[in-house]
Amino acid sequence: MPITKAFAAASATSALEPFQIDRREVGPHDVQIEIAFCGVCHSDIHQVRNEWGGSMYPMVPGHEIVGRVTAVGGHVKKFKAGDLAGVGCMVDSCRTCASCKRDLEQFCEVGGAFTYNGTEMDRKTPTYGGYSASVVVNEDFVLSISPKLDLAAAAPLLCAGITTYSPLRHWNTKKGDKVGVVGLGGLGHMAVKLAAAMGAEVTMLSTSASKEVDARKLGATGFGLTSDDTTFKRLAGHFDLIIDTISAPHDYNKYLGMLRLEGAMVLLGVPPAPTPVAATSLIFGRKTLSGSLIGGIAETQEMLDFCAGHGIVSEIELIPVQRVNEAYERMMKGDVRYRFVLDMKTL
Amino acid sequence: MPITKAFAAASATSALEPFQIDRREVGPHDVQIEIAFCGVCHSDIHQVRNEWGGSMYPMVPGHEIVGRVTAVGGHVKKFKAGDLAGVGCMVDSCRTCASCKRDLEQFCEVGGAFTYNGTEMDRKTPTYGGYSASVVVNEDFVLSISPKLDLAAAAPLLCAGITTYSPLRHWNTKKGDKVGVVGLGGLGHMAVKLAAAMGAEVTMLSTSASKEVDARKLGATGFGLTSDDTTFKRLAGHFDLIIDTISAPHDYNKYLGMLRLEGAMVLLGVPPAPTPVAATSLIFGRKTLSGSLIGGIAETQEMLDFCAGHGIVSEIELIPVQRVNEAYERMMKGDVRYRFVLDMKTL
Repeated sequence: MPITKAFAAASATSALEPFQIDRREVGPHDVQIEIAFCGVCHSDIHQVRNEWGGSMYPMVPGHEIVGRVTAVGGHVKKFKAGDLAGVGCMVDSCRTCASCKRDLEQFCEVGGAFTYNGTEMDRKTPTYGGYSASVVVNEDFVLSISPKLDLAAAAPLLCAGITTYSPLRHWNTKKGDKVGVVGLGGLGHMAVKLAAAMGAEVTMLSTSASKEVDARKLGATGFGLTSDDTTFKRLAGHFDLIIDTISAPHDYNKYLGMLRLEGAMVLLGVPPAPTPVAATSLIFGRKTLSGSLIGGIAETQEMLDFCAGHGIVSEIELIPVQRVNEAYERMMKGDVRYRFVLDMKTL
Repeated sequence: MPITKAFAAASATSALEPFQIDRREVGPHDVQIEIAFCGVCHSDIHQVRNEWGGSMYPMVPGHEIVGRVTAVGGHVKKFKAGDLAGVGCMVDSCRTCASCKRDLEQFCEVGGAFTYNGTEMDRKTPTYGGYSASVVVNEDFVLSISPKLDLAAAAPLLCAGITTYSPLRHWNTKKGDKVGVVGLGGLGHMAVKLAAAMGAEVTMLSTSASKEVDARKLGATGFGLTSDDTTFKRLAGHFDLIIDTISAPHDYNKYLGMLRLEGAMVLLGVPPAPTPVAATSLIFGRKTLSGSLIGGIAETQEMLDFCAGHGIVSEIELIPVQRVNEAYERMMKGDVRYRFVLDMKTL
């Protein structure tokens, strides 16, 4: 078993430190990728610190993985050595349930194999993420990355990109649609770029007036300051779709009031406690409140191809892997524009 | 102005008593209906008692109106004297906004003219409902009732019928769909009948085990006792659609857990306070929580025709109008199976 360098957390209270993991030999359907860059997602912090419960240690986080293929198994058809490739939040699923058959592996009924802090489908072998030198993944869960894209800045597309692309597509965002994006962070900044590229009129909804300049640079044509109640009156009935990326407590009812007839608000963030929803917020105007979770593998490839076609990548701050603990601290303070990416050659 | 006998409440604390109202002369586009029967909707009680605020007195309630046309204006094309006709929750709307143009007059952007406790579109002339001998309504807001239907039992279709038919249609209920109906009351019993007629497998979800027998008679093939937590486990991921008719406090998250991937739960009832919703209840499975409000005029006619084709009417207890106050008291105790209808010839 090849020994692979990595950064791991030994416990919920440990800093991330150098570690060594075993990666499996390249099987007939496997792709081996030398990891060039790995994005740092806020969910890495939640899981490292066991904020969602059930964390497994040692943990090697990272599910925004990009790099170059170094070897492929004998039956692999879609990749060859030298190709650029990516891995997102999942490395396998049951492939036979109704969700998997609909290319919605993220909702696999028996539970997919997540890229880290989980197990392979044998439910025994732990999975280790992208804060490492290389990874071996079944070709069906490997994505092709266009050389047109800046590779480091493409890494966050594997999670932040698909998490925002999927609801925009599912709710059929098209030219002229009015889309509100709540929160300008790792997810929010991708939602602005992607919705604008789909032709939507994008409005950034933020508690911070200071975010307006960046939001407009990213493609927003409107801004609503959500710490000011007049914003909710000004934009009443305005939006076709609101993409809500916020995990802090906030009043969904106010945002639902900004939807037009039959508009939808889609939750991507998980506030610490359930949020009170008035039935009347939904009944008047036949509105919907919904949620979305990353996206399936086929849709992730579609998103990457869309980004290649539109020249879309994430806004990143590239750092050596040794600064990942500092990056976590800065992310906790909201001090990142808009995604840290680890340069894995520093490992 | 023809003087018309009615029953009215003089204030939020008054019993309903005999009263006289003016109805307008029949204009060129008007239909005059001698009211034969009027259903008693729970919202009549809310409005008579000013539980939603803003009630206007004297109030003549009633928006489940059926009867026979006695006169029509010179330009009326769809009705003639002698026809059976009905009037529901609305008697007019702006007719020019985006909602009205989509036949969704219930969401009229300037606010429609509701059948009682409101005004005509002049925003001056009060509207009086169906607890009266006759009514004069613009033909565009008059529905045609098939003589195949029992007329008294058809009255509740004008509100309870359309309120449940509209979400079933909007969420595309079809043969084999698994539909849960929460609560077996005026709305719930119509939802069971209509969903079953559309070919769905209907499960009644109720806190009362005693409702099972009736639910099965009405067309349900399953029953879930919601006071028993094992029900939520047994039916986890089961439903395509849940129609929630309950206005008492209840935990939406438990019900959302019974939806399949991309299932929808539609609120028709308004609990007294907003209900906490966990983002995860929607994110895992891309589920939707939505609401629905009566239905447009065209859809109301479609529902009446559907009911005529399938022999569907409401289960009613026919009472003389003088017993309406007693009916209100019994409804407050849930003692009605499943709709009181006033026999207006007793007026």
